[in-house]
Amino acid sequence: MAPPDPLIVIPRDYFFGAENDGLALESGRELGPVTIRYETYGNLDQKRRNAVLLLHAFSGDAHAAGYHDPEETHPGWWDSMIGPGKAFDTDRYYVICSNVLGGCRGSTGPGSTDPHTGEPYGLTFPVVTMEDMVNAQHKLISHLGIDRLLAVAGGSMGGMQALQWSVSYPNDVAGVIVLASTARLSAQGIAFNAVGRNAIMSDPLWNGGDYYGSAPPDRGLSIARMIGHITYLSDGAMHERFGRRLQERADFGFDFHDQFEVESYLEHKGGTFVDRFDANTYIYLSKAIDYFDLCGKYGGLEAAFSNCSSKFLVVSFTSDWLYPSYQSKEIVVALMRRDRDVSYVEIDCPFGHDSFLLETERQGPMISSFLGTVYADVQTKR
Amino acid sequence: MAPPDPLIVIPRDYFFGAENDGLALESGRELGPVTIRYETYGNLDQKRRNAVLLLHAFSGDAHAAGYHDPEETHPGWWDSMIGPGKAFDTDRYYVICSNVLGGCRGSTGPGSTDPHTGEPYGLTFPVVTMEDMVNAQHKLISHLGIDRLLAVAGGSMGGMQALQWSVSYPNDVAGVIVLASTARLSAQGIAFNAVGRNAIMSDPLWNGGDYYGSAPPDRGLSIARMIGHITYLSDGAMHERFGRRLQERADFGFDFHDQFEVESYLEHKGGTFVDRFDANTYIYLSKAIDYFDLCGKYGGLEAAFSNCSSKFLVVSFTSDWLYPSYQSKEIVVALMRRDRDVSYVEIDCPFGHDSFLLETERQGPMISSFLGTVYADVQTKR
Repeated sequence: MAPPDPLIVIPRDYFFGAENDGLALESGRELGPVTIRYETYGNLDQKRRNAVLLLHAFSGDAHAAGYHDPEETHPGWWDSMIGPGKAFDTDRYYVICSNVLGGCRGSTGPGSTDPHTGEPYGLTFPVVTMEDMVNAQHKLISHLGIDRLLAVAGGSMGGMQALQWSVSYPNDVAGVIVLASTARLSAQGIAFNAVGRNAIMSDPLWNGGDYYGSAPPDRGLSIARMIGHITYLSDGAMHERFGRRLQERADFGFDFHDQFEVESYLEHKGGTFVDRFDANTYIYLSKAIDYFDLCGKYGGLEAAFSNCSSKFLVVSFTSDWLYPSYQSKEIVVALMRRDRDVSYVEIDCPFGHDSFLLETERQGPMISSFLGTVYADVQTKR
Repeated sequence: MAPPDPLIVIPRDYFFGAENDGLALESGRELGPVTIRYETYGNLDQKRRNAVLLLHAFSGDAHAAGYHDPEETHPGWWDSMIGPGKAFDTDRYYVICSNVLGGCRGSTGPGSTDPHTGEPYGLTFPVVTMEDMVNAQHKLISHLGIDRLLAVAGGSMGGMQALQWSVSYPNDVAGVIVLASTARLSAQGIAFNAVGRNAIMSDPLWNGGDYYGSAPPDRGLSIARMIGHITYLSDGAMHERFGRRLQERADFGFDFHDQFEVESYLEHKGGTFVDRFDANTYIYLSKAIDYFDLCGKYGGLEAAFSNCSSKFLVVSFTSDWLYPSYQSKEIVVALMRRDRDVSYVEIDCPFGHDSFLLETERQGPMISSFLGTVYADVQTKR
């Protein structure tokens, strides 16, 4: 049997706030106009009850599945999970994914033009939070004619947005899927982000955030990405994949030209990242992650969930040391104390934090089954 | 009772290799002249059987205990463990600590003057290995009139040197104390070191390693240190110490001036580090750590230990994720398979990799007892 034709997806832009209807930010500032880049897969049913909003992680974007054109070499970042018969089954669900506010992949961010100056915002862009991102997504959903989502789902920073959805819009989301995430960033997490920002800001080409139109701070951004990348993997996964093998040689060269494979891999990852990511977005999104703290913001996690009515699926991974399982368990315990409907699974998987992107065999059926249950609930209740 | 007078220590220099007696390096190159900065505490006994060589970690130096002058605010790096009645009891033992070859704290390293050019070596300094460092230490010990050490002891990179001593000079060391260390650096460890080196080398002031006499690459070195520092602590220790508290403010400022305490702490640590450490030494020592692999070098760890006759004490810490306990256990298992005399303790301690520097309550008596046993052995056998 020939493989099915690849899914060709056309990204779209939702534009708002050009008049006096900008986004009121948590900081007190207002932002507008705002563009939100998004993609959709599958079809919205007549009752508008089958929409699932996917929330991307730190370096993700709206392009979650399929291809933009037949020449594209890689599909969207979660293609393994989205499509006919897959976990997010596009035969049943209308799947939406948007690039976050503050991003650099089509949505308004620090690299966008400030209409008041005609110049890129740079560091004059307002600091945005997880709540701001979710508010922008809520506007998009309304624009698409959806008043209640079947589910929101995301891993890592996407899981933070999913949690924020359940708190900010408790009546507008039936199911919440939180993968490899946390309700508040740890001190260690803040530390890693801070060093990444420092690396960018120390690059002379960063120039106080004002580098658009000239050479960007690629070295600094690349170093930030390398640090991040180590935290997305695990000791075991790195040992398994690279061990202590040298890159293209058998013996030590006793100089600084020889490299271990793992060094070469990280430098490559850092080097390619700069082609698709903006250094200022790195700074803004990492700050939003640092700020994320449902406990601090609402006076405890139980209090945060006091109005939630959603069903939850929380998944963590044994080898994830960036957002370790104990952090998922904090979420689960708080939901249980509130008598919320929550399923929790810790998946034994060696790939570290990135497991949520890589593991489909066990995550897939769990998500599929969870969505099926929530979908049945929604059909019954309305 | 008044506190005892502080121990005032005078650092000394051992100088060799000015004639045709330089150090033959593992790379095949020869290095000379060489200065080794060292300090000693306590007295060598008449039979010269009570000498203990301490081996410092990555950022340590020869100044392990006491004060250089009464005005010094902090004592040497392991003062809590060295002195009359302490773990390394200077009433019984003659304790020696030297700055490693390649260092920047008195011993010859990349910042030293190359006698052939009259200029600092910079990156023309040869790549040195753990074995080279140990060979230089062996020359120092001979110079001090000691043909057999009672013990070598070190944590982290110091533990690597201790292991290398037991392999390179199996007959010259009776006891080997290895704390929070490994027989080979992991892929994850190489990755962190590589990013640190990248941060330094990306600083324009690094200038290919040729910055002596001008402004040094402080930003790059500071970032490297921040990365390292995170790996020396633990998630739990950082949570306990800093949590999510902001530095000198109660609420988010929604700008990039506000900082969490942990950010501020790391920047402070990075900023003070550059005053006492040379960026090129960071590059050279991290490379020596990357290269360290007793398994690869000798065809397996058991083979590496084939000629060892020393007694071993191996200690690891539960919260050390840089050199986790499983890496210490690999050493212990290999020694046991060789029927060597080895004691192993895993200490439940929350401070991460730095535990070996901070924990004295349980380490102290263990080291004291181990040294006592080895000392009794040595007295009997000779």
